[in-house]
Formats: sequence, structure tokens, C-alpha cells
Amino acid sequence: MSEPFPIPPFAKECKEKAKEAFGASYVHPFVVALADGSLSSEIFRFYQIQDAKYLESFSDACAILSTKANDPKDKLWLIDAARMSLVVENELHLNYGKKLGYDAKTIADTEPTPSNLAYQNHMVSVALKGSSVEGLSAIAPCPWLYIELGQHLLQKMGTIPESHPYGDWLRMYSDSGFNEYMKNLLALLQKWADQTDAGTREKAILAFEKSVHYEWMFWDQAWTKQTWRH
Amino acid sequence: MSEPFPIPPFAKECKEKAKEAFGASYVHPFVVALADGSLSSEIFRFYQIQDAKYLESFSDACAILSTKANDPKDKLWLIDAARMSLVVENELHLNYGKKLGYDAKTIADTEPTPSNLAYQNHMVSVALKGSSVEGLSAIAPCPWLYIELGQHLLQKMGTIPESHPYGDWLRMYSDSGFNEYMKNLLALLQKWADQTDAGTREKAILAFEKSVHYEWMFWDQAWTKQTWRH
Amino acid sequence: MSEPFPIPPFAKECKEKAKEAFGASYVHPFVVALADGSLSSEIFRFYQIQDAKYLESFSDACAILSTKANDPKDKLWLIDAARMSLVVENELHLNYGKKLGYDAKTIADTEPTPSNLAYQNHMVSVALKGSSVEGLSAIAPCPWLYIELGQHLLQKMGTIPESHPYGDWLRMYSDSGFNEYMKNLLALLQKWADQTDAGTREKAILAFEKSVHYEWMFWDQAWTKQTWRH
Amino acid sequence: MSEPFPIPPFAKECKEKAKEAFGASYVHPFVVALADGSLSSEIFRFYQIQDAKYLESFSDACAILSTKANDPKDKLWLIDAARMSLVVENELHLNYGKKLGYDAKTIADTEPTPSNLAYQNHMVSVALKGSSVEGLSAIAPCPWLYIELGQHLLQKMGTIPESHPYGDWLRMYSDSGFNEYMKNLLALLQKWADQTDAGTREKAILAFEKSVHYEWMFWDQAWTKQTWRH
Repeated sequence: MSEPFPIPPFAKECKEKAKEAFGASYVHPFVVALADGSLSSEIFRFYQIQDAKYLESFSDACAILSTKANDPKDKLWLIDAARMSLVVENELHLNYGKKLGYDAKTIADTEPTPSNLAYQNHMVSVALKGSSVEGLSAIAPCPWLYIELGQHLLQKMGTIPESHPYGDWLRMYSDSGFNEYMKNLLALLQKWADQTDAGTREKAILAFEKSVHYEWMFWDQAWTKQTWRH
Repeated sequence: MSEPFPIPPFAKECKEKAKEAFGASYVHPFVVALADGSLSSEIFRFYQIQDAKYLESFSDACAILSTKANDPKDKLWLIDAARMSLVVENELHLNYGKKLGYDAKTIADTEPTPSNLAYQNHMVSVALKGSSVEGLSAIAPCPWLYIELGQHLLQKMGTIPESHPYGDWLRMYSDSGFNEYMKNLLALLQKWADQTDAGTREKAILAFEKSVHYEWMFWDQAWTKQTWRH
Repeated sequence: MSEPFPIPPFAKECKEKAKEAFGASYVHPFVVALADGSLSSEIFRFYQIQDAKYLESFSDACAILSTKANDPKDKLWLIDAARMSLVVENELHLNYGKKLGYDAKTIADTEPTPSNLAYQNHMVSVALKGSSVEGLSAIAPCPWLYIELGQHLLQKMGTIPESHPYGDWLRMYSDSGFNEYMKNLLALLQKWADQTDAGTREKAILAFEKSVHYEWMFWDQAWTKQTWRH
Repeated sequence: MSEPFPIPPFAKECKEKAKEAFGASYVHPFVVALADGSLSSEIFRFYQIQDAKYLESFSDACAILSTKANDPKDKLWLIDAARMSLVVENELHLNYGKKLGYDAKTIADTEPTPSNLAYQNHMVSVALKGSSVEGLSAIAPCPWLYIELGQHLLQKMGTIPESHPYGDWLRMYSDSGFNEYMKNLLALLQKWADQTDAGTREKAILAFEKSVHYEWMFWDQAWTKQTWRH
């Protein structure tokens, strides 16, 4: 399929390096079961609550990155990205929360799983300690993978039947409205990559790769209902 | 005049401690000349460009504070506050910039004055290093003073004549729409003050006081067209 | 056995909450094999290299916490703690590195395992984003567990034979010189806990618990030679 | 006079850009009066107390920079620099404090002056938000100027008479032991400048210049016993 948004060279390089781990998400049993509708609602609920917590840290990472942007336009774009992740979280509550039985309090009272916490702390630490391009690389895989996956599943399924239990989720991420968002994110990534040195670009690629791994681990923590017990 | 928004106890305490410095802004020659329209457009232009730079750091401080908020609603409110300061900056450019001859590039190419930089670094340092209540205390004086001053000047002048050279500025800050914003800001300040200990509240009051001083120094840096030369 | 250093109430509460996870380290196969000398040198080498990387982040967390200390004496103690973790790292290289075949370059070129990275990012994120008592709680379990474990193993074994392959390691952590260090660390933890509110203390206990879990996961990542492959 | 420590190209560029402001400190009335011994002990006491507060932030900036160093050797050097600034502070107390009547409590109870706070927040903000080379540039002027000034005054005076009221201070900073420290600091600055891009180097030079200005302002705040009153 043709890419629905332009992929500048640095993003291409990041994805190339993380190719195997990127692909692994496509065949994770959670994703397969989500697409064919066989995923248990209990596991989907577990996933949604953890995802809501994750999106708070995604917002934090965007907010921190906004403070590292010199151009007020980039600053505003990142603030809007932070905003969007919180608004998306809120919509997830309102819709699936009612159906599956959870609300804002459930989310606040639930601890992040080990893999979720590791992913959150990765994004936030890199945003706080690293350069702007490293921080942006660490948050890029989440929307990229979801959009690509959403559009891939839509294409594979042709159309999402009204009766599909996870239809709303699949429709949201296959929405072409996200393409503009990804286009802007990857353009900023390229701009910041161009402004920095080779060593920092290497670290940014590593940060990207880690997040791609964490994406797979995120499906897995929901699938296995991961706990902190040993 | 009756307060146009509720002032919870902790905000009251902050303002009481900073009373003298708060009042000093009201009689600064810049403010007097702004109100009576005698302020030279050259000094107003100097002020606006510095203010645009200041608002970028105000956004940064809000963004950092959003990462310290536990409640997603507070997180979103702070992201929206960051957003508003950048959007306000942008509107300042579009309107006054055309009239007074400056644009985004002028702003980017201008260095902050010593007092402006000191204020910006105060807000950002406190937000990064301090607790959430300290950080919020450091940003509260800016909108509070502007709203109070705007509404005070409006009341004093009765009506702002169409011909007033700074009418747009005066109308903006005397707009009662800001009252809701201040109400929410001071309510969050109270909530965070309640959640912390006496020592931290002391530090928050100090951070508030410093910002009230910096507000006066901000009028002064524009009035004197402050430079880094000794 | 009587405690070799005083344990103030807040530290007691932390340890009580994390009791099960604290105890789990004692019986992890890595620890058992380390004590009886049957641990393969290959796994011990893997562990040492990962530990050297971990200690760099331990130093980072101490350094960040030093910036949050108000009392210059506490600031200096934390700088000294950062210093010690880097000097210990260096000594580990010089001794075991020669024997087991690794040096500073090996360490720099090795990626942290998932569990190691998660632990490092936990300490650093909490130190950066949280209050000082949370940050200190997150670093306390590492020295506490090692000292307790070292002294427990020494007591159990009576004496560590000259021929024991990990004798140097066991002797180092069973050294009573560490008791003074722990006494000071836990006294500062108590001081900071006393200066804060109940909600922050709750978060500090959670941060402590997480680190106790990460300690177990650290033995486990070495034992299983954990990788990023799925 | 020949430079007592090697000055690599990037440091040379920084100093060249800040030449005028660098030179201004040499002729500030405080410095002149300090050298000829006519400075009142009241003003020197004011200066010392403010300097003690400043050194706490200097330590903070070094500590933050240590967390951004990749090479454990650089990390340790910066931790040692943090340590030294706290130990120096402590020695200042013990010696001059006894003579001039102040102690640790006096320092803790004294507010930083506006110029001192601005300088502290500049160093800490740049260290937290900027890249490592920017952060290091912001702390370089303080030791550089003091060492250069100390050795310049020693050379001018030939020898510092036993009876000189500020002899200890002058002897400390003219001590050639500091040359090794500066050599290492400027070598690290060069290494980090080489590892980054032109835009970041520009920002680092600006951060350096600001600190040179703040050095002059620091003499001035003591000389005028600056307050927060307008």
C-alpha cells in the first residue's frame, strides 16, 4: 500500500532500524484477536485502562518537548499534541468506559503494569534528559504504529461491520484525519534531526527502537494481564 | 470594587504578603502612560516584543506544571493555559505587529532584557525544581495583575474611547472572560496548597512574591528600554 | 539478627509494605548460586556489566536529588552518594573486569537490558518529576538490600573462604562500613518524610516498592541473560 | 601574561564574544576596593553571604550536567566540581564567617538579591533545559573570571601583605591549583562543543556571555547592597 503520509529520510531510517520489532506488533495475538473480534472484553478493558494511564505520560512527554522547541509554531504543535492525547483519553472513558464498566476513578486507582510503567518512564526520561530530537523519536512510534495498523486492518477487512465489538477503536485509528498529524510529527522529527549532530541522531534512533519494542510489550502486558508479582 | 472572581484563602495570603509590590505596578509610569494614552509607540513596541518572548516561557512553565498534575483534568487545564499563552502571543503579533512594525522574526531575533530573562528563568526554574504549588504560585501574578489592572483602568476610565492608541490592549485585559480563567487558576492553587505542608506553602508564597516584583520590573525594563550594557 | 543500623519509622513502613518482594531477592536462584559459589562466571560477568550501567543512573538520581535539598549538608551528602556510586563502578571494572574480561569500553558498548533500563528510568523519572522524599525512596532499596543481603550471607556462611569465586563481592557488601551510609540515608528519608504531607508519603512508599521489585528483576535479568528480542 | 592554562578554540571564541563584559569586572569599584583593601567589611560580608548562596546553585548546575554526561569520567568530574563548590562554601563560612559574624543559619535565612537569583536561575535553567555544552558554558565564566582576576591581582600587587584584610580570598583564587581545574573544564567544553551542531554552539556562546554579564552584576549587587524594593 502507498504510504498515507510522507516519510522523510530520518523517519525512514528509524523505521528501517526497528523493522523487525515494528512488524512483531502486527502478529501479536492481542492484535490478531482485536481485528477478528475474538478478543475477550475483559482483556480489552484491561488494555483500555492501561492505555488511558499511558496517554497521560504521552501528554507529559509532549509538554516537556514543547519547552525545548525554539520556534513558537513547533511549541504550539506539541502543546496541541499533548492536548489531543488527553482528549482522546477522555473520549475513551466516555465511550468504552460505560460499555465495559470503568471510569476516571478506576483509571486513577489502577497501577500501571511493569511494561506500561517502563514505557512511560522511557518517554518521560528521554524527553527530560535528552535532546529534543531524541524525545520526539521516543514518542513517534505510538501514533505511527497505531495509524499504520489501523489502516492496515481496515484494508485487510475491507469494511468494519457494525457488529464488530471493537469497531469504534478500529475506525478511530484507521481515520485518515490522523495522516495530517503524522505528516507534521515526522516533518518536525526531520527538522530537529537536521539541526543536530550524528551522535545525537544515533541516540534518537535508539530511543525510537526502544519505543517500538515497548509497543509490542504493551500489547503483551494486556494479553497476559501482567502484574508486579514474581 | 468587588472582586470579579472568588479568591480562596491561600491566594489571599499570597497577595497580602506581596501587597506593596502588587500595588507598585499600578503607579509605574509605564502603566500610567499606557492608561492615559501618552505612552510612546516606540516604548509600547519594545514592551510588546519582550512580552511575546515572555509568553513563550509562560507556556513552558504551564507545560511543565501539567506534567506534575496527577488529575487528568488539571493536566488538561494547564495544557490549555500553555496553549492560550501561545495563541495570545500570536494574536499580539498579528494585530500590533502590523501597526508597530514587527513580526515573528523580529521577536525571534530580539534578546530578552535582563529583567525579562530573570522573570522567565524564575518561572521555569521553580516549575522544574519546585513542587507543583510553588510552580503555580510563580505564574499566578501575571494574569492576576493584568486582569485586575485591566478592570481597574476600565472602571477608572468609564469607557475606552475608540481613538485610544492602546484601546485593544486595555479592552483585552479588562474582558470579563478572563475571570473564569482566574477562578480556575486560584482554585487549583488552593487545592495544591491544601495538599502540601507548611514549609512548601512558605516557599510558594516566596515564589509568588518574586513574580509580583518581576511584574513591576517588567514594566520598568520596557520604560527604560533596558539593555545588557553596564 | 539485630539491625546493624537504626531504622526510623518511615523506612520501617516502606520495608513493611514491600516485605514480600524484599524477601523474594533472598531466594532468587542468582543469589543462591552467588552465595554457594556455583554461579557461572559468564552470568556474573553479564551481571557486573549491567550493574556498572545501573550505577551511572544511580549517580544521576543522587545528583538530581542533591539539587532538591535545601540544607547544604544534605546536598553534599547526596553529591557524595553520587560520587561513591561512580567510584564503586570504577573499582568493579578494575578488579572483576580484568578477571572476567571487560573494561570501560565494553560497558559503554553494552545496551541495558529491559529490566535494567526500566529500573534506571524509574529512579531518574521519580527524582526529576517527584518530590525529594519520593526520589530518595526510589534509590533506598538498592543499598539497603545489598547491605542486608551481604551481611545475611556472611552470617549464614560464618566466614567467606579465600577460594570463593565471588568472595570480593560478598566481602564488599558485608562490610560494616556501609552501615554508616545506610544510617544517614534513612535518617534523611525520615527528615524529608516528616516535612511532607500524607499523599506524598504514599507516593514515596509506592516508589520504594517499585524499586524493591526492580531489585528482584535485576537478579532475574542477569540470570536469564535478558534481551530485547520477543 | 601567558595564560596559566590552555584555552581551546571554543573557549577562546566564547571569551572573545564576551570580551567587553569580561573586562568590565576588572574595573568594577568592588574589585578595585577588594584589591587595595579599602572595601568595607560590611560590604564584603554582604558579598560572602550572597556568594555562599550562589555556590549552592553552582553545585546544582554541575550536578544536573553530570546527569547529561555520557562518559562516566566526565560524570565524575562534574560531580567533583559540584562537591568542590559546596566544600568551598563551607570553608568560606568557617573562616570569614567567624571573623565577619555569620554562619550557616545566616546564609539560610538570607534571601538572594535580584541579580544573584537571576544568575542562579540562569545557570540552573540552562543546565536543565539546554544541551550539555550550553549548560557547561553557563558555569564556565565564574571560575574562569575568578582565577584570572586572582592571578592578575597577585601579579599586579607582587605579593599580598599579611595585613591585607582580604588576603585569604586573594590567595585562594590566585592559587595555581585552580589551573588544573580550568584546564579540565575548558577541555570538556571543547569536547562537547565538537560533538554538537553550529546552532547549539551559538546558544552556548550566548549562555556564556550572559554569565559574564551576571558576574559583573554580582559585584554590583554587593557593592550597592541590592534589595528587592523598588
